Amino acid sequence: MPKFMDIHRGMEGLTADQLKAAHQADLAIEAEEGVHFEHAWADPDSGDVFCLSDAPSAGAVQRIHERAGHKADEIHPVPLSL
Amino acid sequence: MPKFMDIHRGMEGLTADQLKAAHQADLAIEAEEGVHFEHAWADPDSGDVFCLSDAPSAGAVQRIHERAGHKADEIHPVPLSL
Repeated sequence: MPKFMDIHRGMEGLTADQLKAAHQADLAIEAEEGVHFEHAWADPDSGDVFCLSDAPSAGAVQRIHERAGHKADEIHPVPLSL
Repeated sequence: MPKFMDIHRGMEGLTADQLKAAHQADLAIEAEEGVHFEHAWADPDSGDVFCLSDAPSAGAVQRIHERAGHKADEIHPVPLSL
């Protein structure tokens, strides 16, 4: 399954609870698109959030994020990983 | 130990072997700054590469990347992770 790294901008001041709630909102519906969000990392100072997923396509990643209320600003396929 | 996500731009066409060699160059000297690069993900089409590390500071991450020949374009502390 292809891997994707997506980026959300503008989340300055995000708290641990807010990140967890957003991630849970993705997890609750991700299976409907065959997506799995493995990890999320947030920089509350810059407002950038990074999500790593396994998914059939970038579109599937975006559809889950949009339905969960947080559309991604960039979605990168990352076919190379270490 | 704080975690950091750094981004390298402009690596269009990067191959799996080149990513591995770059990562190995970091690993070879990372201990000198108390850094550990845990993972790297690359999108050879956009040229963006993402590295996740444990490190004492963003400066320590950058010093290792610079000495290894690939200065990062952005380094984000990511105190929140899931």
